[in-house]
Amino acid sequence: MKKQIDINCDLGESFGVYRYGADQQVMPLISSANVACGFHAGDPHVIRETIELAAAHNVLIGAHIGFPDKLGFGRREINAAPQEVYDYIIYQLGALDGFMKIAGLTMSHIKLHGALYMMACEKQEISKAAVKAVCDYNPDLEIYTLPNSEMSKNAAASGLRVVHEFFADRPYDHHGVRMFNWSLKEIGCPKEAAKRVLTALEQSVYSEYSTNEHIHSICVHSDTPGAPEIIREVREALIAAGWAIGNSQQVNV
Amino acid sequence: MKKQIDINCDLGESFGVYRYGADQQVMPLISSANVACGFHAGDPHVIRETIELAAAHNVLIGAHIGFPDKLGFGRREINAAPQEVYDYIIYQLGALDGFMKIAGLTMSHIKLHGALYMMACEKQEISKAAVKAVCDYNPDLEIYTLPNSEMSKNAAASGLRVVHEFFADRPYDHHGVRMFNWSLKEIGCPKEAAKRVLTALEQSVYSEYSTNEHIHSICVHSDTPGAPEIIREVREALIAAGWAIGNSQQVNV
Amino acid sequence: MKKQIDINCDLGESFGVYRYGADQQVMPLISSANVACGFHAGDPHVIRETIELAAAHNVLIGAHIGFPDKLGFGRREINAAPQEVYDYIIYQLGALDGFMKIAGLTMSHIKLHGALYMMACEKQEISKAAVKAVCDYNPDLEIYTLPNSEMSKNAAASGLRVVHEFFADRPYDHHGVRMFNWSLKEIGCPKEAAKRVLTALEQSVYSEYSTNEHIHSICVHSDTPGAPEIIREVREALIAAGWAIGNSQQVNV
Amino acid sequence: MKKQIDINCDLGESFGVYRYGADQQVMPLISSANVACGFHAGDPHVIRETIELAAAHNVLIGAHIGFPDKLGFGRREINAAPQEVYDYIIYQLGALDGFMKIAGLTMSHIKLHGALYMMACEKQEISKAAVKAVCDYNPDLEIYTLPNSEMSKNAAASGLRVVHEFFADRPYDHHGVRMFNWSLKEIGCPKEAAKRVLTALEQSVYSEYSTNEHIHSICVHSDTPGAPEIIREVREALIAAGWAIGNSQQVNV
Repeated sequence: MKKQIDINCDLGESFGVYRYGADQQVMPLISSANVACGFHAGDPHVIRETIELAAAHNVLIGAHIGFPDKLGFGRREINAAPQEVYDYIIYQLGALDGFMKIAGLTMSHIKLHGALYMMACEKQEISKAAVKAVCDYNPDLEIYTLPNSEMSKNAAASGLRVVHEFFADRPYDHHGVRMFNWSLKEIGCPKEAAKRVLTALEQSVYSEYSTNEHIHSICVHSDTPGAPEIIREVREALIAAGWAIGNSQQVNV
Repeated sequence: MKKQIDINCDLGESFGVYRYGADQQVMPLISSANVACGFHAGDPHVIRETIELAAAHNVLIGAHIGFPDKLGFGRREINAAPQEVYDYIIYQLGALDGFMKIAGLTMSHIKLHGALYMMACEKQEISKAAVKAVCDYNPDLEIYTLPNSEMSKNAAASGLRVVHEFFADRPYDHHGVRMFNWSLKEIGCPKEAAKRVLTALEQSVYSEYSTNEHIHSICVHSDTPGAPEIIREVREALIAAGWAIGNSQQVNV
Repeated sequence: MKKQIDINCDLGESFGVYRYGADQQVMPLISSANVACGFHAGDPHVIRETIELAAAHNVLIGAHIGFPDKLGFGRREINAAPQEVYDYIIYQLGALDGFMKIAGLTMSHIKLHGALYMMACEKQEISKAAVKAVCDYNPDLEIYTLPNSEMSKNAAASGLRVVHEFFADRPYDHHGVRMFNWSLKEIGCPKEAAKRVLTALEQSVYSEYSTNEHIHSICVHSDTPGAPEIIREVREALIAAGWAIGNSQQVNV
Repeated sequence: MKKQIDINCDLGESFGVYRYGADQQVMPLISSANVACGFHAGDPHVIRETIELAAAHNVLIGAHIGFPDKLGFGRREINAAPQEVYDYIIYQLGALDGFMKIAGLTMSHIKLHGALYMMACEKQEISKAAVKAVCDYNPDLEIYTLPNSEMSKNAAASGLRVVHEFFADRPYDHHGVRMFNWSLKEIGCPKEAAKRVLTALEQSVYSEYSTNEHIHSICVHSDTPGAPEIIREVREALIAAGWAIGNSQQVNV
C-alpha cells in the first residue's frame, strides 16, 4: 500500500471584480481546497464558483476561515474575544455549507486563515474557541494546523482529527515556519521547494513546528508567485518518491 | 378546532454595539421570528443570541435576508443580477443555519427584507431567483410574502409553502401595503392596529395585495415605535376573536 | 496655437491585496487621473500611492466618486436619496483632499463612477445633488460627464466648468454610449478605437450623447483589456492629428 | 482671570438606522466634540448632522479617528502597520474636513478612538505615525491624549499642542485610567464623578497617567449610562470651583 500525502491550497480568495490566486491552474493539482468564506476574502458568487471548480476536479473542500478584515486580507491580528472568534467560525462554516448543500457536497475540513491561524496556534483560548466551534458544528471536520501548536493539541484532546501541514512555499528555521516577512529568495525555485518537502517528510525532525511523523498535508498558497509551478513540482517529486496524493478521505492519484 | 394565525416579527437587527428593536419584549408575544443574517443587519454574535432567545420562547425561526447594505439597512433597491440575489440568499441561509445547527434547531421559514422583499414581490426575475434558492437549499422552508405578489405566485408554482402576511403596522390603500413613507398617525394606536388586523381577516378582500383568504400571518416590525404594545394588543384581540396564535407547524396558545 | 484635448483614466481602483487596473503603465500616457476614493474601490493606502504616481507624471488629479458598494464595484444602481448622494460626495471629496493636502497638491476635478455616473446623467435630482455638493465644497472643480446629460446641464446652469468626455473603449450608437454589456469585439483593436476618437472629434454630431463641439476629454478605463495599448494608440493618433494632450488647466505635450 | 478647563465628548457615533450616544443632550454641555469619521462609527449623514449640531452650540469640533472595524466599534487592537495607521488618519481627517468645509468651519483637534487611542499611548511607532499624520496634514490641530503617554511625548516633541485629558467616567488606579472592563459601580454617581474630577485637578499627582499639571480637558463618553447627568454635574462642580469651561481656543462660559 502506497504512502499517502495531501496537497492543500487556499482558494476562492477573489472578491467582486478583484481576481486573486491561480485557482484554475491550481485546482487540478491538489487534493484539498480551503475556500475563503467571505470575511477576509471571497464573496457569495466566488464561493459558489470555487466549489463548482473543486467538485469538477474531485478535490475535497474545506472552510478557510478568517477575521472580518478584507482591507487587511485577514493577515492582521485582531484581539477579538474567544466568543467572537467562535461566532465568526460558526457563521462562516454555515455560509460555506449553504453552497455545499446546493452542490450536494459534504465539507471535509476547516483551516483558519492568516492571523487567526497563527493566533490559534499560539494562544490557548483562541484555539479552544475554534475547537469548540468545530465540535459544536461538526466534529467530523478535519482541522488543518501546524504540528505541536496549541490548536493541534486542543483539537486532538477534543477528539478531532488533526491534519498537520508543511508549507512548501514558506521558509522554516529553528522557530518553525515563518508565515510573514519572507522573501522569494528564501523560498527558491520550485525544485528547491519540492526538495524541502521531501526532506521534511523524510527527516525525523525538521523543526519544532514540523515533525515528520506529523505531516499529513503539504500546503502551497495560491497567491505565492509561481504557485502552480511549485505545486506541480512538489506533486511530481512526491509521486516520484512513491507517495500517493490525497488525504485520509480520498486518494486521487 | 380553533382557527390559527401566526404572528411574525423581524428580530436580531442589532449590530456590534448598536441595539435595535425590542427583541426581549417582543419575543414572548410572537410565534415566528425572522432573524437578520448579517447583510442588512445583525452579526454573528447577535444571530446566536437571537436564536437562543427565540428558542427559549418556543418561537419558530426563519432567515430574514436582505441586501449587503448595512448603511442603508437593506431598504434601498440595488439592481443586483438575479444570480447575485440567488447567491446572497444561499450565503445567508447557510450562515443562519450554522447557528441553528449548534442550537440543535431547524429553520422553519425565509422572509426577504426591505427592498429585496419588495423587489421579489414586483419583479419576476428576482422572485424566481429567490424561489430557486429556496428550492435548491431547502424546499421545506415556508416563504413569507405578500399575497398576489410575483413572489407568492412563483413560490406556489414551484411547490413551496407560502405564508401570506398582513402588516399590522403599515397603512394599506387600494395599491396595497405602503412599506415606506408612512406616518405614525396613519398606523394609529395599538387598538386601531388590532382592529385593522381583525377587519383584514374577516373581510373578503382588503386590498389587491391582501385578500383575506390568503392571510396566514400578522407582521409587526420590532422597530415600529410601540411595537411591543401593538403586538400585545393584536395578539389579545386575535385570541378574543377566537384565533389560536401559531403557524402551521406550531400552535403556542 | 494647438488644439488641445485631455485624456482621462479611472485609476487607484486596487483594494487591500487586490490589484486592479494598469496604473503604472497608464499614468505616463494621460493628462487627468480619476482616483477612486474608497467607496466603490480604493483604500487609504492606494489613494496615497496613486496620488504620488500621478504627481510624478505631472497628471492632474480628480476624485472618482461612487456608491458604497465594493462588492459590486459601484456598478449597481442603489436608489439612494439625493441627500445621501450629496453626503457620499462630500465625504469622498474630503477624504481624497486629505491626501492631496499632505502631497501639497490641488484637486482639479470630480467624476462620478459607474452607476452613480449614469444616474447623475439621467436623473435630475441626483445630478442636482451632485452639483450642489461640488458648489458647496469647491466650485473650482471641473465636472467630467457626458454631453447633453442632466449632469452637464445642471452643472453648467450652476456655473461649474464641465468637461465632456468621449469613451474610446465603449461602443456608441444612436442612444449614445453603452457603458454596460459591451463586448471586446465592439471596441475593436487600439487602431479602431483611435479612429473612433478622431471621427468623434471631427464629425459635427457623433450621437445624441456626444457632439463634437462638446468633447473636451477622451476616456479610457484602466481595466479595459489592453487599456495601455488603446491609450497609447489614441494618444499617438491625436498628436499626429495636431492635438496637444492636456486639459484647460495643463498641457503636458 | 479665570482658570479654564475644556469638557470633551465623543459624538456622532450613530450609523445608518442605528442611534448611539446622547448627542442632543450632551452637546449643550461641552466645549469640544470629537466626531467619529466613519471607520469605527459614524457615516457621512451622521457626520454632517453632528457638525451642524456642534456648530449650533458653539462647540469646537475635532476628528475622532479609529480603526476600520465597525463590528468591534474600534475597540479591538488591530496590529496594523504604522503606515496603515498614518493612512487611516489622513483619510478620516480629510473626510471630516470635507463636511467642515461645507459648513464653513475649522477643525480644532484630533483624538484617536478606542484601541487606536490606547495603542498610540503605549506604542512608540504608532504614536509616531499619528503625530506625523497630524504634522503633515495640519500642525495646528491639538492632539487629545493621556498625560505621560507615548502620544503625548511624541506630539510635544514634534511641536504639536497637546491636550491632556482626565476621564470623569472611567476608574483610575496606580496604573492610570482603566478604559476597558470597568463597572458602573466603580464610576459611581454623577456627584462622585464630579468629585474625582475636582480632586484630579487639585492634587499634584493623581496617577502616573494623570498629573494635575497636565490636565486640560475632562472627558465623558456619550455612551456611558447617564452621560448627560455626569457631564452636567461635572460642569456645575467645575464652575462652582471657579473654572471657566472652554479650551485654549474658546471659552464658552
